[in-house]
Amino acid sequence: MKTVLLIGIGAGDPEHITVQAINALNRAQVFFILDKGYADDELLRLRTEICQRYITAPGYRIVVVHDPQRKADPLSYQRGVERWHEQRAVLFERLIDEELRPDETGGFLVWGDPSLYDSTLRILERVLSRGAIAFDYQVIPGISSVQALAAQHRIPLNRIGEPIQITTGRRLALDEGANVDNTVVMLDAHSAFEGFLGRGLHIYWGAYLGTDHEILIAGELDEVCEHIKHVRQKARQDRGWIMDAYLLRKLD
Amino acid sequence: MKTVLLIGIGAGDPEHITVQAINALNRAQVFFILDKGYADDELLRLRTEICQRYITAPGYRIVVVHDPQRKADPLSYQRGVERWHEQRAVLFERLIDEELRPDETGGFLVWGDPSLYDSTLRILERVLSRGAIAFDYQVIPGISSVQALAAQHRIPLNRIGEPIQITTGRRLALDEGANVDNTVVMLDAHSAFEGFLGRGLHIYWGAYLGTDHEILIAGELDEVCEHIKHVRQKARQDRGWIMDAYLLRKLD
Repeated sequence: MKTVLLIGIGAGDPEHITVQAINALNRAQVFFILDKGYADDELLRLRTEICQRYITAPGYRIVVVHDPQRKADPLSYQRGVERWHEQRAVLFERLIDEELRPDETGGFLVWGDPSLYDSTLRILERVLSRGAIAFDYQVIPGISSVQALAAQHRIPLNRIGEPIQITTGRRLALDEGANVDNTVVMLDAHSAFEGFLGRGLHIYWGAYLGTDHEILIAGELDEVCEHIKHVRQKARQDRGWIMDAYLLRKLD
Repeated sequence: MKTVLLIGIGAGDPEHITVQAINALNRAQVFFILDKGYADDELLRLRTEICQRYITAPGYRIVVVHDPQRKADPLSYQRGVERWHEQRAVLFERLIDEELRPDETGGFLVWGDPSLYDSTLRILERVLSRGAIAFDYQVIPGISSVQALAAQHRIPLNRIGEPIQITTGRRLALDEGANVDNTVVMLDAHSAFEGFLGRGLHIYWGAYLGTDHEILIAGELDEVCEHIKHVRQKARQDRGWIMDAYLLRKLD
């Protein structure tokens, strides 16, 4: 039986990796790396560095594949994602079928945690439900950017006895009327925090968390909003990509 | 300057530990372990095992201290927690003052992630704000039981593009009228999920996640509720303690 490992590799710091993930890296003979077609050479380099640093089993292969770009569906976000997942499922099916020999183990390296706003797990389930190929799979949790954000700002994610919300930038932008309190935001391409000025919110923002290029900004949202927008735009320009996250919180 | 490290050690599997946490363990000369006064010999053993397995720097000291029990305040949950935090702050202040020599580093081993429903970070801040002693501190993120739960059930925490809520059993019980959807529940002493029958919810439950004694149950809440209640009561009786978590989700 073929085995596929979804390995969470942390939020950017190579030392975020767990012993469980290192052992998983050493169980796989083949690693699938998706090339998203934009300037993520540095992300590719970080992944390769993780393989070189932690894999002691010799002779592993790395298969870099072109990842289909997601085309936005003008009528439905869900439908656009759905179509993209189907394309990726066809691609993953081919990879597992052709690149993994029987009884071999393949690994997908996932930034952060494979269970948190990452589609790899869902796509593997879709491959299985297509029924053309069979394989076993396992999920290895990893430190998410949410946790790196809290650790680097040295803040608890929750207030005493209160719930935490984790959401996406896209979703936050849709909820502009909503009461945002103690909300962690990931995958925000458009600085959705800007829609929440004048409400007494505090923001803890971080980019490239855990890497040498880490940037942390915290303060009253009304005061630091423009500064964060400027810093994140410049960083994205300079590096060609950005990974950031933030927490919005009403202070007592 | 004294340094205090809050080290997340994962949800129960010794291999959840990160390379960053292993390095932190090796930087500390003293570890503070809080003895909660109930039968958590096994939890103490797991922590000691982590020290023995991963610390290569010789000569570290372990200081086991009696942790003040939290007394419920009949009038206010917040006030009960507040008083307990103050007691612990006094205790931590004394530990850091007396047990750490100047320039030494002390470590607190925290189950899961120090930023997620753990009070150690808040108490250290309180010690600093008391102003009697000074020290630097750092937070090392760890795999939380939320992530171990999702990984072991092999499920994404979020549905496509939707938010996630993380809350406590106590809080969930207060919100019985509320619309619970895609909610992760931690620290539930009283099976609060029982209040959410008849709503078409699915539950993914796990206890002792990542350990040899791991138990996983998933299914329609209406169907598995009694089974989970029975299993968790028996497990708590047999082992003297339980660490569990669950996800409630409306299926499409």
